[in-house]
Amino acid sequence: MSDSLERTGEPRASLFDLQQVVRGLADVRQRWRIAQKRSREPGGRELPSRDALSAIVDGLRGALFPMRLGPLDLRQESEDFYIGHTLDAALHALFGQVRLELRHQQRHTGAADEAAIEQQARTLVRDFAHSLPAIRELLDSDVVAAFEGDPAARSVDEVLLCYPGIQAMIHHRVAHRLYELGAPLLARIVAELAHGATGIDIHPGASIGAGFFIDHGTGVVIGETAVIGQRVRVYQAVTLGAKRFPTDENGHLSKGLARHPLVEDDVVIYAGATVLGRVTIGRGATIGGNLWVTHDVAPGANLSQARSREVNTNP
Amino acid sequence: MSDSLERTGEPRASLFDLQQVVRGLADVRQRWRIAQKRSREPGGRELPSRDALSAIVDGLRGALFPMRLGPLDLRQESEDFYIGHTLDAALHALFGQVRLELRHQQRHTGAADEAAIEQQARTLVRDFAHSLPAIRELLDSDVVAAFEGDPAARSVDEVLLCYPGIQAMIHHRVAHRLYELGAPLLARIVAELAHGATGIDIHPGASIGAGFFIDHGTGVVIGETAVIGQRVRVYQAVTLGAKRFPTDENGHLSKGLARHPLVEDDVVIYAGATVLGRVTIGRGATIGGNLWVTHDVAPGANLSQARSREVNTNP
Amino acid sequence: MSDSLERTGEPRASLFDLQQVVRGLADVRQRWRIAQKRSREPGGRELPSRDALSAIVDGLRGALFPMRLGPLDLRQESEDFYIGHTLDAALHALFGQVRLELRHQQRHTGAADEAAIEQQARTLVRDFAHSLPAIRELLDSDVVAAFEGDPAARSVDEVLLCYPGIQAMIHHRVAHRLYELGAPLLARIVAELAHGATGIDIHPGASIGAGFFIDHGTGVVIGETAVIGQRVRVYQAVTLGAKRFPTDENGHLSKGLARHPLVEDDVVIYAGATVLGRVTIGRGATIGGNLWVTHDVAPGANLSQARSREVNTNP
Amino acid sequence: MSDSLERTGEPRASLFDLQQVVRGLADVRQRWRIAQKRSREPGGRELPSRDALSAIVDGLRGALFPMRLGPLDLRQESEDFYIGHTLDAALHALFGQVRLELRHQQRHTGAADEAAIEQQARTLVRDFAHSLPAIRELLDSDVVAAFEGDPAARSVDEVLLCYPGIQAMIHHRVAHRLYELGAPLLARIVAELAHGATGIDIHPGASIGAGFFIDHGTGVVIGETAVIGQRVRVYQAVTLGAKRFPTDENGHLSKGLARHPLVEDDVVIYAGATVLGRVTIGRGATIGGNLWVTHDVAPGANLSQARSREVNTNP
Amino acid sequence: MSDSLERTGEPRASLFDLQQVVRGLADVRQRWRIAQKRSREPGGRELPSRDALSAIVDGLRGALFPMRLGPLDLRQESEDFYIGHTLDAALHALFGQVRLELRHQQRHTGAADEAAIEQQARTLVRDFAHSLPAIRELLDSDVVAAFEGDPAARSVDEVLLCYPGIQAMIHHRVAHRLYELGAPLLARIVAELAHGATGIDIHPGASIGAGFFIDHGTGVVIGETAVIGQRVRVYQAVTLGAKRFPTDENGHLSKGLARHPLVEDDVVIYAGATVLGRVTIGRGATIGGNLWVTHDVAPGANLSQARSREVNTNP
Amino acid sequence: MSDSLERTGEPRASLFDLQQVVRGLADVRQRWRIAQKRSREPGGRELPSRDALSAIVDGLRGALFPMRLGPLDLRQESEDFYIGHTLDAALHALFGQVRLELRHQQRHTGAADEAAIEQQARTLVRDFAHSLPAIRELLDSDVVAAFEGDPAARSVDEVLLCYPGIQAMIHHRVAHRLYELGAPLLARIVAELAHGATGIDIHPGASIGAGFFIDHGTGVVIGETAVIGQRVRVYQAVTLGAKRFPTDENGHLSKGLARHPLVEDDVVIYAGATVLGRVTIGRGATIGGNLWVTHDVAPGANLSQARSREVNTNP
Repeated sequence: MSDSLERTGEPRASLFDLQQVVRGLADVRQRWRIAQKRSREPGGRELPSRDALSAIVDGLRGALFPMRLGPLDLRQESEDFYIGHTLDAALHALFGQVRLELRHQQRHTGAADEAAIEQQARTLVRDFAHSLPAIRELLDSDVVAAFEGDPAARSVDEVLLCYPGIQAMIHHRVAHRLYELGAPLLARIVAELAHGATGIDIHPGASIGAGFFIDHGTGVVIGETAVIGQRVRVYQAVTLGAKRFPTDENGHLSKGLARHPLVEDDVVIYAGATVLGRVTIGRGATIGGNLWVTHDVAPGANLSQARSREVNTNP
Repeated sequence: MSDSLERTGEPRASLFDLQQVVRGLADVRQRWRIAQKRSREPGGRELPSRDALSAIVDGLRGALFPMRLGPLDLRQESEDFYIGHTLDAALHALFGQVRLELRHQQRHTGAADEAAIEQQARTLVRDFAHSLPAIRELLDSDVVAAFEGDPAARSVDEVLLCYPGIQAMIHHRVAHRLYELGAPLLARIVAELAHGATGIDIHPGASIGAGFFIDHGTGVVIGETAVIGQRVRVYQAVTLGAKRFPTDENGHLSKGLARHPLVEDDVVIYAGATVLGRVTIGRGATIGGNLWVTHDVAPGANLSQARSREVNTNP
Repeated sequence: MSDSLERTGEPRASLFDLQQVVRGLADVRQRWRIAQKRSREPGGRELPSRDALSAIVDGLRGALFPMRLGPLDLRQESEDFYIGHTLDAALHALFGQVRLELRHQQRHTGAADEAAIEQQARTLVRDFAHSLPAIRELLDSDVVAAFEGDPAARSVDEVLLCYPGIQAMIHHRVAHRLYELGAPLLARIVAELAHGATGIDIHPGASIGAGFFIDHGTGVVIGETAVIGQRVRVYQAVTLGAKRFPTDENGHLSKGLARHPLVEDDVVIYAGATVLGRVTIGRGATIGGNLWVTHDVAPGANLSQARSREVNTNP
Repeated sequence: MSDSLERTGEPRASLFDLQQVVRGLADVRQRWRIAQKRSREPGGRELPSRDALSAIVDGLRGALFPMRLGPLDLRQESEDFYIGHTLDAALHALFGQVRLELRHQQRHTGAADEAAIEQQARTLVRDFAHSLPAIRELLDSDVVAAFEGDPAARSVDEVLLCYPGIQAMIHHRVAHRLYELGAPLLARIVAELAHGATGIDIHPGASIGAGFFIDHGTGVVIGETAVIGQRVRVYQAVTLGAKRFPTDENGHLSKGLARHPLVEDDVVIYAGATVLGRVTIGRGATIGGNLWVTHDVAPGANLSQARSREVNTNP
Repeated sequence: MSDSLERTGEPRASLFDLQQVVRGLADVRQRWRIAQKRSREPGGRELPSRDALSAIVDGLRGALFPMRLGPLDLRQESEDFYIGHTLDAALHALFGQVRLELRHQQRHTGAADEAAIEQQARTLVRDFAHSLPAIRELLDSDVVAAFEGDPAARSVDEVLLCYPGIQAMIHHRVAHRLYELGAPLLARIVAELAHGATGIDIHPGASIGAGFFIDHGTGVVIGETAVIGQRVRVYQAVTLGAKRFPTDENGHLSKGLARHPLVEDDVVIYAGATVLGRVTIGRGATIGGNLWVTHDVAPGANLSQARSREVNTNP
Repeated sequence: MSDSLERTGEPRASLFDLQQVVRGLADVRQRWRIAQKRSREPGGRELPSRDALSAIVDGLRGALFPMRLGPLDLRQESEDFYIGHTLDAALHALFGQVRLELRHQQRHTGAADEAAIEQQARTLVRDFAHSLPAIRELLDSDVVAAFEGDPAARSVDEVLLCYPGIQAMIHHRVAHRLYELGAPLLARIVAELAHGATGIDIHPGASIGAGFFIDHGTGVVIGETAVIGQRVRVYQAVTLGAKRFPTDENGHLSKGLARHPLVEDDVVIYAGATVLGRVTIGRGATIGGNLWVTHDVAPGANLSQARSREVNTNP
């Protein structure tokens, strides 16, 4: 292209040398592709899209809670029409994204079999679609838990409309199902959409029982292999994390090991508490705010911080 | 509808059984409505809308700070035209949302009196409208406080354009007025819009004096019954929370009790400090970072953490 | 205008007295302008715009990572066309914003020289444009660091698409360059866009080496004068802050002093740790979670919290 | 408002005197309202909206021809969901517009009875909704007529997608039904939307049988009281107009008299022909291009222009 | 750029050779610029924009008829706020477009004096702004003329909402003023926007008195130097055109001569009539449909076509 | 779906019986499919889209005339980037539409061979892409012809920005190429987009030489098999049509026969003239306004209407 520009032979007192910047960026991309051992092939962008998934989750959310999170002009007598039309669009869009992820997986593992991908994507989306009623039922239990657990809550509708914890759980329950069905990258994107909007960071691999309530939520982190029972309640800035990352003989991180806590039914964990490693917090235990827990806690235990050592530095 | 589909009698190798998923979701909704004792009535969605309130707050923000947060092409000689037009639209939209909330309140309390709702909504919006100059004045004091309190701030304009603490306070001062006037659900939605955007979670019930400055802000939580004086400064991850939730004789949470701190004028609370319960932090006191405070603090006191017990685990 | 309304002489049972509210707001604005010693001049809004910068950063992000963050329908054979066209638009828009900031700076310092501003803006944008390849190269190192540092990461593409730490670093590396080149207000807006989206608050003044990895990220705060070496890793809620703010003889904050930590190469700082003041964390040191550090740490040191003092309050 | 501006007392070298222009426009509006005997009442705009009707017709068109004029991503197995959802929204929006027209009618006739309007609007929309299958059937006959009448047509789908005559008939058949049911203003707006898009101007009052085909269409005008039989074909620039407008004793136009042609079954009228007045064009007649017809034409007649008198002005 | 692509050295089986097409287009543009004697200068597009003018006319239309063509949610008590805000934006946007046209004019005449352009643009926009009340008054007379002249019209509001003739006159009265003030290119764009939407083609140079009514309108053409009196009525496909185009001694068209008809007050011209050349149609004359008139017509004359010579070709 | 609705058993006083309307429409569609012998297959909409083609033509128009019809913020030094990026997107979108048309053709002819369609679509788009420079060259000749032929034209830029004849020719030259290459349905949609916007109806099959100028244009109709030489000029409402449509032995229209005029170089045809049938208008001939021509016209002839027979019906 440069020569067609040069042929015109006119002086150009441009703001910056665009050609040079474009060329510089091409060089860096080229170095990256070589370093990552990627061949340059013609063809389109082959990655799932954050915007596409955002639209899909919006559609699913409306289909799950039509009269409260659906369109403003919806009427109850046409709920099912709305749901059918919305799901049809959302699930077909999901099918497209699933194919992109499966192709991306295969590109990294080697062989790419388009027919197998097509079949696998169909099965995945069908299974996902048929999970939606169960997902709605779990989310109903989360809404009730929030209403019952927060003295400031005035109605179940307020909880569904306002609470960031519920927003995070809608995303999580969708993401977790995608993760289980073999689409971990889509699942991660769905989770990060909620993380960005709420400050609540739940890895889609985490397994969470019914009636889960996150209050306030900013700063909550729940790791990939965490397992959480029923009716558990956590507050802002709670971390259920990994203690350390084992490495293999080559010094690379071992991926996929169970490394996050097991939290049994009816546990409450107050704000800022940090629970690290594959420890078990026994049924009905309470973990006080800001605590740092790296060991098992017995069922029914009630841990609280010893009185903070403050120093009054005033004269 | 299913039968009209069946009548066509064509084979359909669909991606998933849409009819079945729609039916499954209808069943779950039906169970929810029964459990929540909601009758199924025809009619539209009767809940306030997050999107509508987001647009309303955008309009109010522009009307409050026209030359800095208003439209890019605004000129000072037509400020008042812009403000009048924008307020007119925003306040009438607010009127619509207020009616939705009042109807929702009545549905839960029983009797629904449309004429009374109309009158109550009119009064509420009128009172709110006439509060706007006072709200602007309070926000001006917050901007000055931020400018004077942050060594990185270069101008009051930078503070208004960039600081998440200011964004949160614009929402809070609007939300708090709505809360006082009897629209707690709208107030909560306004507050959560700011929470999502800034990570600062201020319950609209909290009462906050002039010149309030929140620096950085992510993770700040201020509870419903907190009362904060003038010229108070807090940093990221500060919690002004409740210590415990008293329950009534039936084990239900008692709602509405004063359960959050009283913070007097000129207090500074550093990052990560947690103040819980109906305690009083006396005028001019300083609370050090990461402290955990569940008792009254005397005026002028300067609490700081005793030196952290670290262990150097290196050989 | 009021008289043209009055002349019509019709009764008006309006929802609220719009004229009065508009007049009330004009009075408050007038008081603000007097207090801030701003004369009222005709003319347009003269401040940079958050929305404009958001669009500019979107364009830059697409140009930096065309096949992964660019448009969905992009194909590799037309990457350079896309980049050239996108950069051209983004950089000219940036030029407009830079002029607005430079004018704003001059308004505060006194003399306004439009020709000098024009020249300065041209130089700034040209220098910025020619930095883009180097910025891409630094970001590539950040992506690799995240992939290698997180056992949950499945591919470098997942990291770029999903990780909020990467999103924050794209903004930071752009913002830091703008800060260095003399556009601190634009830089701050770019930084706050990332802060709002990720909960990661990095002041654009902070200097950060290659291969920086922020995991989870919510609540991270990095101050204006912090200096961070290569291959450093930090977790959520880590603060690299200032200890105190020195004031000058008049009690005003001294602005611009070095007051945040120096973090050397290969340091790891776990979640919730707070490092305050101009201290040095030596090369290769590890700071445990939730620690509060206000002193220098030796190279290779491995600080961890002494066992948390918990009290089991159960009977 | 003007005084709040003046109070600020700053010089303003504005581009134009906005206050004066606004005042000038208010004066003209006031003169119009007095001339039209309209009192000035508070309240909103009370007229139907061209944009709203455009969206309604788009919805109806999609519901009538889902797989050809509906959304690109529609699949046959979810047609009915799409139709139900789309109709529900379109018909409720239509209900709102019908109410506006009925109120506008009453304002001009005197008494305004809101409950009667509500009831009348409900009946009107219900009757309209139940006419939709018959409208679709008529339109199918128009599509077939176009396909069979035009040697350039390749398929019925091409006709539906491309032919402006079909676009005009979709609008007309909808508009005519609205006209019959008592919403002539809405009907007129729907007709003018087609007029603007196709240059075909059919008054919604015109009664048109099945299998009507308009080829090319630009400049066709069909008047309010025209009656057209089955399988009629007309070409561009054909006028079926009124000959003269009778006036009453006061010199005012008599409105509503039958004043346009009766065109019987199987008539063909070629381009540019003008038929004026309440004349009858007998079954099967053919009217040649550019003819000017103001008298009855017998069934089966074949009128053509006598050879045009041309003058060859060349030397 | 091509070489940066080639450097990557990967095979590319692209759909088409994009580089070659881009180069081919550059060559044609280059030939055009040479043929048109245009030097290639850096810089942006320097032509007015159809989209910008469309938005400007939308704004003006709303400001002229706020309660009927303004926003749906407008209320009478805030009309003036809406008008002031809308005019301010529209007139400043117009100012930008005027500057572009004046620069374009100067480029063609030679010298370009930016300060003079600025001053001329200011004067032009100020004069235009202060013409708006008079334009509204003329348009009111057009609305009344349409209502009184069409037996199908039910109310003045229907006329304003629906009639393409009114839409064309709103554009024409705006365009004519711009033409008079020295912005003929902007005027032409405004006129063509109406031409595209209505099929009515009025050159902005045409001078048209009050109470002008165009019925149906498709195919109407009114030339640049036509002069039309008060209360004139024309129907679809009427042409007021030029008879021949005189050329100068070099065979070039003489531009700017008066070459279109003078139509005096109270004339009616029926559909399809063609009036050519600088002839005068006397006050109160009537021109019948489809007539071809190239000579003066006396006041009060009533021309009609002799009976059309039809031939009944039926056996 | 109906039964899931019924199962809820609540009374529903709906505005209309949506289920019944949906079922009624399904029945009509079913009758249509049976009548058209279309089987009902699952799958998406398989027809090209008017909206998609509108976007494609917008892209092509910008790529053909970047500095005049491209984006407002384009600068000459980045023209080629813009063109490359825009063409890439437009041509790939065109590829998708071509595939849809080819499939639609095969569905009607019988066998559907997906691989052949793919190959044919690739060839078609490649050939189209490489025609673009020639199309631009032809359009340049049309612009010059308009500028030289219209005394009201002030510059070639005004012609390109404003003249509907040019807009129609941009569409026609694109549509004609698509028609030649075997995509007649896409071609027809492109042509109808221009017809709707300008009132100029040129069938994409028409063959038109360089330097074609259509003035005013509303009502022009040019038929499928018309052949037009170089430097031809036509005015509004000119028809180049077919005289009669021959039918085959079964009474069906014979499709595809040459049935429209041959117009040689340098012919001028004035407004409203109608030329019908496969006649030849010889080089340099002039056809006067409103003439009706169904026979050959000799080269250089100058036909004009004999003086119109008017009757002055005044007393």
